Amino acid sequence: MESYDFGIVGLGVMGRNLLLNMADHKFAVAGLDLDTEKAASLEAEAGPKHQIKATTDAATFVASIRKPRAIMLLVPAGKPVDSAIESLLPHLEEGDILVDGGNSYFPDTERRYTWLSEKNIHFFGMGISGGEKGARFGPSMMPGGDEVAYERLRPIFEAISAKVNGDPCVAYLGSGSAGNYVKMVHNGIEYGIMQLLAEVYDLMKRGAGIADDKIQQTIASWNDTELQSFLVEITGEILKKQDEDGTPLIHRISDWAKSKGTGKWTSQNAMDLQVPVPVIDAAVNMRDISKYKPERIEAAKQLTWDGSSTNTDEDELLTQLKDAFHFAMLITYAQGLAQLTVASQTYQYGLDLETVTKIWRGGCIIRAAALEDFRQAYQRNKQLPNILLDEQIGNTLNQLQSNFRSAITYAVGKGIPVAGLMNALVYFDAYRSAELPTNLIQAQRDFFGAHTYERIDRDGVFHTQWN
Amino acid sequence: MESYDFGIVGLGVMGRNLLLNMADHKFAVAGLDLDTEKAASLEAEAGPKHQIKATTDAATFVASIRKPRAIMLLVPAGKPVDSAIESLLPHLEEGDILVDGGNSYFPDTERRYTWLSEKNIHFFGMGISGGEKGARFGPSMMPGGDEVAYERLRPIFEAISAKVNGDPCVAYLGSGSAGNYVKMVHNGIEYGIMQLLAEVYDLMKRGAGIADDKIQQTIASWNDTELQSFLVEITGEILKKQDEDGTPLIHRISDWAKSKGTGKWTSQNAMDLQVPVPVIDAAVNMRDISKYKPERIEAAKQLTWDGSSTNTDEDELLTQLKDAFHFAMLITYAQGLAQLTVASQTYQYGLDLETVTKIWRGGCIIRAAALEDFRQAYQRNKQLPNILLDEQIGNTLNQLQSNFRSAITYAVGKGIPVAGLMNALVYFDAYRSAELPTNLIQAQRDFFGAHTYERIDRDGVFHTQWN
Repeated sequence: MESYDFGIVGLGVMGRNLLLNMADHKFAVAGLDLDTEKAASLEAEAGPKHQIKATTDAATFVASIRKPRAIMLLVPAGKPVDSAIESLLPHLEEGDILVDGGNSYFPDTERRYTWLSEKNIHFFGMGISGGEKGARFGPSMMPGGDEVAYERLRPIFEAISAKVNGDPCVAYLGSGSAGNYVKMVHNGIEYGIMQLLAEVYDLMKRGAGIADDKIQQTIASWNDTELQSFLVEITGEILKKQDEDGTPLIHRISDWAKSKGTGKWTSQNAMDLQVPVPVIDAAVNMRDISKYKPERIEAAKQLTWDGSSTNTDEDELLTQLKDAFHFAMLITYAQGLAQLTVASQTYQYGLDLETVTKIWRGGCIIRAAALEDFRQAYQRNKQLPNILLDEQIGNTLNQLQSNFRSAITYAVGKGIPVAGLMNALVYFDAYRSAELPTNLIQAQRDFFGAHTYERIDRDGVFHTQWN
Repeated sequence: MESYDFGIVGLGVMGRNLLLNMADHKFAVAGLDLDTEKAASLEAEAGPKHQIKATTDAATFVASIRKPRAIMLLVPAGKPVDSAIESLLPHLEEGDILVDGGNSYFPDTERRYTWLSEKNIHFFGMGISGGEKGARFGPSMMPGGDEVAYERLRPIFEAISAKVNGDPCVAYLGSGSAGNYVKMVHNGIEYGIMQLLAEVYDLMKRGAGIADDKIQQTIASWNDTELQSFLVEITGEILKKQDEDGTPLIHRISDWAKSKGTGKWTSQNAMDLQVPVPVIDAAVNMRDISKYKPERIEAAKQLTWDGSSTNTDEDELLTQLKDAFHFAMLITYAQGLAQLTVASQTYQYGLDLETVTKIWRGGCIIRAAALEDFRQAYQRNKQLPNILLDEQIGNTLNQLQSNFRSAITYAVGKGIPVAGLMNALVYFDAYRSAELPTNLIQAQRDFFGAHTYERIDRDGVFHTQWN
C-alpha cells in the first residue's frame, strides 16, 4: 500500500502510454479505469522491469499511491472529468495533487480549481500533445495554474517528456487555466496545418492530376527541408501506405472528417478576444462542410466549372505549392501565437511565448523546424505582438509570396477549394494594410443605425445626416 | 390612467422611432427611459395628432397602459434587459405581455421566458431590423416564442411594419427564441454583405485607382439592377457625401470598425451547429483586424508586394466586380439561411424559410431584390437544405462564376485582402465537391491519435498501423 509514485485515471490511448512511459523511467505507477478490459490490458502490456498496477476500484487505486498523492486524469473533456474527480474525492486527503491532462475547455479548469481549492486539493491543468507515440516515448506537456504543485511533479514530467537538444519539452507556462488554453490553441494550429496539407494534396491530385507516387515523393521530400515537421512527415507516410490490393489506402478513406472540439473552441474564443485566426476558422469550417456529403454530391451535379484551361508546368506547380504551404503554415502559427499573446493579457496568464515555442519544438503534433525560428524571434523581442513583424520571418514571407499567390490563382482557376491557403493570404494582405476599407463599414453603420464614427483628422465621435 | 395601448422601455434611436411610428398609426403610446432628456425629447418630437407620453418613472409608466398590458423593451442586450425587466416586475400583473425587441442573445431569451412564465407574465423575443428610418416608417420584425401573446399584438406590429406588395414584413416565425435567433443570423448576413461592399470598393479604389466619381456612379448604378438592395443603395449615397471642403467624406473616416456582437454570435453559434458560414466569419475577422491599426502600420513597411504588374481594363474590371459582388452576396444569404435550417432542427423552432425570406424583403437592413428569388425557391421546395441547390439560383451562380474568379485573381495579384469574396468562392467550390481531401485529415488523425476512420467501400470503423 501507498508505494506508488503516480496514478493515472483513464487508461485510453493517452493514459496507458503515459503510464508505460513513466514506468520506463523507473517510476512506480498505478492506473484506474472502470473498464476491466482496459485495466487488464495495461498490466499485460507492462514489461518485466515495469512497476505497474491497474485497477477498476477508486479506493484501491487511491490507497496505493504514496502521500501527498499525485494523480492525473486522462478522460474525455466535459462531464467525464467532473465524474472522475467526484469518484476520487471521498478517498483523497488535503494536500493531494490532481492534474487534468486532457483537453478540458479552459473555463472548466478555472471552475474546478476553485472547487478543489475549497477542499485543499491542489489542482492544475496540463495540456499534453504527442498522440499515442508521444505519450509512450516523449510528449510535449503544457502545465499551468498551481505552480507549487507542478514543481513537486516536475521531475516526473521532465523525465518522460520529449527532449530537444537536451531541453525537456515541458515547462510551467502561467497561472490559472494557462495550460489548457495553450493546448487548445496548439490544437487550433494543428487543425490549420492539417487543412493546409489536405489542400496542397488536393491541388496536386484533383487539380493537376499528378501521379500518386510523385505526390507521395514530393510531400515526403519536404520533410528534408525547412518544412521539416511531424505533420509533413506523417503525411508522406500516409500517402505511401497501400491497401491490400496495392491501391493507396488514402483513396479508400471516407472524407467525412471528425473533430473533438478543440479547434472550434480556439476559433470561438479568438472571436471573443477579437483576435482573427481565419486559417483555423477555415479548418473548422472545412471539417464541418465535409459532413454535408449528400448535399455535396447533389451540388456537384448542378454547380459546375470547367477548370481545364488552367494549366501550369507540373514541376513549377509543385514548387509553388511547397512555397504556398510554407507561407500558409507560418501564417497559421502567427495567428495562434497572436491569440496566445492577447489571451495572456486578457486572462493574466503571464505567458512567455519563447517558452511556449520552445516546448513545442519536440514531442507535440505541431513540432516543426520552424518552431526554433519562432523561439528565436521571441528571444530577440519578448514584446513581439505578432511573428509577422519579426524581420527574419517577414523576409521569408516576402520571398515566398509570389509563388504563394500563383498557387492560389491556380486553385481559383481549377475550382479547388483552398480555404486555409486563401485565409492565410487574406490575413497577410489585411495585416500589412495600413488602411483597410472598413471605413466604409463605419459609414454604413452610421447611415442606418446612427452608430457614429471616428475621423482620421480630428478627435471625437461623429454622426452624419447622410441623405 | 390605463389609457395607453402600448409602452416601450428605452427611448434610444430604435425605441423613440418605433413609438412615433405607432403614434402615426393612431395608437396611444407611452415611453419610459431613466434619462430625463430622452423622455423629454420624445414628447417634443411628437406631432399634434400623436398620443404620446414619456416618463422616467416605472410605476407611472406601467399604470398608464391599459390591461392586460403590452410593453416592449428596446435596451442594449445583456444585463440592461434583465435590469429593465426587474424594474417593471413589481408593477406588472399576471397576463401582461413583455416583448424584448432588442438584439438579445437567444439563450437569454429562453432563460427569461422560463423566469417570466413562473410569474404568469407573457414574454417573447422579437428581432427588429431597419435602423433609425425603418423603426420610424416601417421595420421588418421577427417575433418568436409565445404565439398567443404575439397574436394579441399582431394588429399593432402589422400596422407599423414595412409592406411589400401589401404584405406586412412581420410574421410569427417559430417557438422559443426563434425571433432573436433569426434576427441574429439576419445581422450575420448584414455583416457579410457590408464586408463584401467594402472589398469591391477597396479593389476599385486602392486596387485599380479608379476615380472617386466613377466608383460612386458604378455602385449607385448597381441599385437599378438585380443587385437592388438597401446596403447597395446607401453605399452609393455614402460615397456621394462630401466633407466641408468637397472631398468625399469617406476618405476622412477612420477604418477602425466597431461591432455590437451579433455577427460574432452568428459565427460562434454556426460552429456549434457545424454549419459553415465563412463569409460571416470573414466579416467578423476583418472588423477585428481593423482594430490592430498600429501593428498594421508597422507591417505595411515590412511586408511588401508590388502589384503593379496586375492590370486589367477598367470597365472590364467593374463588370467583374459587379458579378463578384452578386455571386458572393448570394452565397452569404445561402450560408445564413443554411444556418437557420439547421438551427430550426436543433432548437425545434419550426421555422418556415419562405416566411423568413418574405418578411426580409422589406424594412430590414438586408432587404434586397434577391430575397424574392429566395422566397420563390423555398416556395418551390419547402425542404430545400441550401439555396445553392435551387436550380434557378444555381444557374445564376454558374453564369457569374467566371467573372467572379477573375475578380479574385485580380485581388490576389494586387495584394488586396478580399476575405469575404474568397470565402464565398471557397464555400461554393467545397460545397460542389463530391469528394473533399478531408480523407487525408481522417488518416492523419488515425495516424497520431488512433482516432480511427471510415472507408468508402465497407461499413465499419478502421484503424491502421501506419508505419
